[in-house]
Amino acid sequence: PLFDADNLKHIKQEMVSPPALPKHEQVAEGDPVVVEVTFFVEEKEMEIAPGVKTWGLTFNGTVPGPLIVVHQDDYVQLTLINAATNTMVHNIDFHAATGAMGGGDISNVAPGEQVTFRFKATKAGVFVYHCAPGGIMVPLHVVSGMNGAIMVLPRDGLKDELGNPVRYDKAFYIAEQDFYIPKDENGNYKEYDSPAEGFPDLITSMKTLLPTHLLFNGKMNALTGDKALEAKVGEKVLFITSQANRDTRIHLIGGHADLVWLGGSFNDAPATNYESWSVVGGSAVAALYQFRQPGTYTYLNHNLIEAILFGAVAQLEVEGD
Amino acid sequence: PLFDADNLKHIKQEMVSPPALPKHEQVAEGDPVVVEVTFFVEEKEMEIAPGVKTWGLTFNGTVPGPLIVVHQDDYVQLTLINAATNTMVHNIDFHAATGAMGGGDISNVAPGEQVTFRFKATKAGVFVYHCAPGGIMVPLHVVSGMNGAIMVLPRDGLKDELGNPVRYDKAFYIAEQDFYIPKDENGNYKEYDSPAEGFPDLITSMKTLLPTHLLFNGKMNALTGDKALEAKVGEKVLFITSQANRDTRIHLIGGHADLVWLGGSFNDAPATNYESWSVVGGSAVAALYQFRQPGTYTYLNHNLIEAILFGAVAQLEVEGD
Amino acid sequence: PLFDADNLKHIKQEMVSPPALPKHEQVAEGDPVVVEVTFFVEEKEMEIAPGVKTWGLTFNGTVPGPLIVVHQDDYVQLTLINAATNTMVHNIDFHAATGAMGGGDISNVAPGEQVTFRFKATKAGVFVYHCAPGGIMVPLHVVSGMNGAIMVLPRDGLKDELGNPVRYDKAFYIAEQDFYIPKDENGNYKEYDSPAEGFPDLITSMKTLLPTHLLFNGKMNALTGDKALEAKVGEKVLFITSQANRDTRIHLIGGHADLVWLGGSFNDAPATNYESWSVVGGSAVAALYQFRQPGTYTYLNHNLIEAILFGAVAQLEVEGD
Ligand SMILES: [Cu+2]
Ligand SMILES: [Cu+2]
Ligand SMILES: [Cu+2]
Ligand SMILES: [Cu+2]
Ligand SMILES: [Cu+2]
Ligand SMILES: [Cu+2]
Ligand code: NA
Ligand code: NA
Ligand code: NA
Ligand code: NA
Ligand code: NA
Ligand code: NA
Ligand SMILES: [Zn+2]
Ligand SMILES: [Zn+2]
Ligand SMILES: [Zn+2]
Ligand SMILES: [Zn+2]
Ligand SMILES: [Zn+2]
Ligand SMILES: [Zn+2]
Ligand SMILES: [Zn+2]
Ligand SMILES: [Zn+2]
Ligand SMILES: [Zn+2]
Repeated sequence: PLFDADNLKHIKQEMVSPPALPKHEQVAEGDPVVVEVTFFVEEKEMEIAPGVKTWGLTFNGTVPGPLIVVHQDDYVQLTLINAATNTMVHNIDFHAATGAMGGGDISNVAPGEQVTFRFKATKAGVFVYHCAPGGIMVPLHVVSGMNGAIMVLPRDGLKDELGNPVRYDKAFYIAEQDFYIPKDENGNYKEYDSPAEGFPDLITSMKTLLPTHLLFNGKMNALTGDKALEAKVGEKVLFITSQANRDTRIHLIGGHADLVWLGGSFNDAPATNYESWSVVGGSAVAALYQFRQPGTYTYLNHNLIEAILFGAVAQLEVEGD
Repeated sequence: PLFDADNLKHIKQEMVSPPALPKHEQVAEGDPVVVEVTFFVEEKEMEIAPGVKTWGLTFNGTVPGPLIVVHQDDYVQLTLINAATNTMVHNIDFHAATGAMGGGDISNVAPGEQVTFRFKATKAGVFVYHCAPGGIMVPLHVVSGMNGAIMVLPRDGLKDELGNPVRYDKAFYIAEQDFYIPKDENGNYKEYDSPAEGFPDLITSMKTLLPTHLLFNGKMNALTGDKALEAKVGEKVLFITSQANRDTRIHLIGGHADLVWLGGSFNDAPATNYESWSVVGGSAVAALYQFRQPGTYTYLNHNLIEAILFGAVAQLEVEGD
Repeated sequence: PLFDADNLKHIKQEMVSPPALPKHEQVAEGDPVVVEVTFFVEEKEMEIAPGVKTWGLTFNGTVPGPLIVVHQDDYVQLTLINAATNTMVHNIDFHAATGAMGGGDISNVAPGEQVTFRFKATKAGVFVYHCAPGGIMVPLHVVSGMNGAIMVLPRDGLKDELGNPVRYDKAFYIAEQDFYIPKDENGNYKEYDSPAEGFPDLITSMKTLLPTHLLFNGKMNALTGDKALEAKVGEKVLFITSQANRDTRIHLIGGHADLVWLGGSFNDAPATNYESWSVVGGSAVAALYQFRQPGTYTYLNHNLIEAILFGAVAQLEVEGD
């Protein structure tokens, strides 16, 4: 069935780092296209909090990986490149795809290899993708940061709870990552010379089911202070949040979800006026808020312990009057 | 009010072991009936994972107990038989029932006794049932496996999000059970000569709120490999999942919930196109997917640590082209 | 924009202790009003379970604080009084408010001070409020009990899933509070001479993410036995439950949610016939049940370990025939 796509127009989508989204139209122009995306696997040491280093397994060097944006019935043609300098086999499972383990079955690449495959984005919504190289490697790679999301917009754009068109002025992709960094007998975070060296301890740490860090966009304070997000009074801002592994609950201090597409489905009417909304492990959810007042806003996991002590907090500066 | 049921036709429903469902019609034929069901309590030692034994408290010898299927406004007439060889008082609380603690108040049976009671299934949906013998015995029996679910179909069958009839070609009942198996000082799982002997340790273990196992249908790998579920391309498969105690989040790798009846309510329009869906502790949820492609699919708790390290995984083999 | 409110009628709402609600009309009479509410901060030692004492930080001396009831488009004019005998700065963040960190930015009061501010209740639903004095103080104050909820009714009252008016005969406010009481090396709960003295240990305890108590209305057995709630057969009872910090899942043994406003939004059609419903951390949810049969009912967190071993249980006695 994918051969049908050969006659379609091909478009390259340049990936950008979260919280930014790639350039895209909210309403599709013309027929479905093939959206070509390239992901480079990067295994890299990351300092996720002051003095806390871990081996990140990443798509394109960021946790989460880049947000892909397409329209329903477009095809995604993904090229996954695993540099020879990496040490592990990786792949990618798209929750937006159908069959073949979401692509996991046809995208395994050893270091030095690359693979290209295509899937049709048949369902509109926001969906997680992640590395899923089989068995215990699945949670190990996912909690090492190897996950992201795709937004599949309806061809005619988003609609509110009454079925009327709704457009956003700005959009941010904010993912929560649960880390389980192993500690030594003195309670100090351990470091390793390679991802594989750390895996036995990481398995032990994951078994506690208790994360050591819950970080928005991969690093403590990645989106606060100087790096706070920005918006203007009157703007409708779309917030896309994914959590690839563990349940979270999102709240915007001083704001609300005017609209929230529960479960991430753009095929269902959004719920309205939520104070806090669930993002279950293995899902992405989108919420829209129109800012009414200037000031500082906080976007957080409203388990306040997880927000403040584990790091799941972002800030927005909203200008205007 | 239950006397009204005396003039209704009585039907016996033969229980079968999960993941199978008893024989049933999707659309009710004629007037409401009294569906007679017999549950035998079995207290039995079970090996839930290699080398891990626990005292299972079960309805009909399986974890979960059998799925009952009726139509809205049918009566369920349940006979609960507690063999003299058992050691404990048990009962049954149906979340589908009204009043009398869901039946818990009128179904207590000591070993060697049996009880029969009736309730009208007034609400359409999938609902948990479980043993609830009071106080601390409630969680002890539930986390020892004594729970299951009932599906109460609308008399005219299921409907999709637009209100159109939808029929399934096949249905599976997959429950997640959280176990809290006590360990000795060396970290080895302990065994006991009777359920009661293990309860003090089990209380201590439950207090951690951290399960040792999260198993689909009562046993590690109960539904994988040789025992994978089977379906064909084009089939609409209904998946009913219950979790009697602890929140879970379900995902079908390579597929979706085309339809998911959140909260298990068949009275509400289903949500569509979910990648992962919540099943909160003490609830059952139904999701339908039409398989488009052949291959292996994985049905799992998408906390990937809970899936891979704790056992919450099933597989499906889908044939066709 | 708040100046607009100066010409509106002002009404004082007398606060009452949960589970009671203040006197209110279900359908608004006339134009929007300014509802004046006074909250007294009380820092007080509380015995939350036999032999377990902790420093409660409270609004009006109860955990949760009082439920406020207004109608959509009313203004809430809150006076927050921090007695000179208290030891800490407090404030209040209303999830029902817009901007200014939900009011947190404009309501900080040191001991001996008071503040009055106003917000317009633009969105209909049930919403959490809580103290949010910044940084680590936020979870410390919230898990010390400093939270409650407001109900913002639609001006024309509640509607069922079909859009028809629905009225309740009685309403109860039941909040679940997660406590993290520190223990000494012998496993005994510790006591402190002031809130601040206990905070270092409380931070350590919160970091476990594992509560020691999950209590309805602030105290073990606050709503059971002699203190069980009361209703009559035929009555429609509205249950408002908030959890300011941690996810819970609510069930009514022997009953259901005939209607449940998920996420607490009265702007969305309620879901129907839920057996158990999610209340994510940082949210309030309302559910309505019409009692059909007399007897004892139990309203609980359906993680049965959390209900029975951690305390999240209430009872209702329903009279009639
Ligand atoms: Cu990977
Ligand atoms: Cu996945
Ligand atoms: Cu039992
Ligand atoms: Cu129950
Ligand atoms: Cu406070
Ligand atoms: Cu809050
Ligand atoms: Na989603
Ligand atoms: Na739909
Ligand atoms: Na259900
Ligand atoms: Na309905
Ligand atoms: Na709410
Ligand atoms: Na609405
Ligand atoms: Zn191309
Ligand atoms: Zn990988
Ligand atoms: Zn999927
Ligand atoms: Zn009969
Ligand atoms: Zn039992
Ligand atoms: Zn029930
Ligand atoms: Zn006044
Ligand atoms: Zn305070
Ligand atoms: Zn808010």
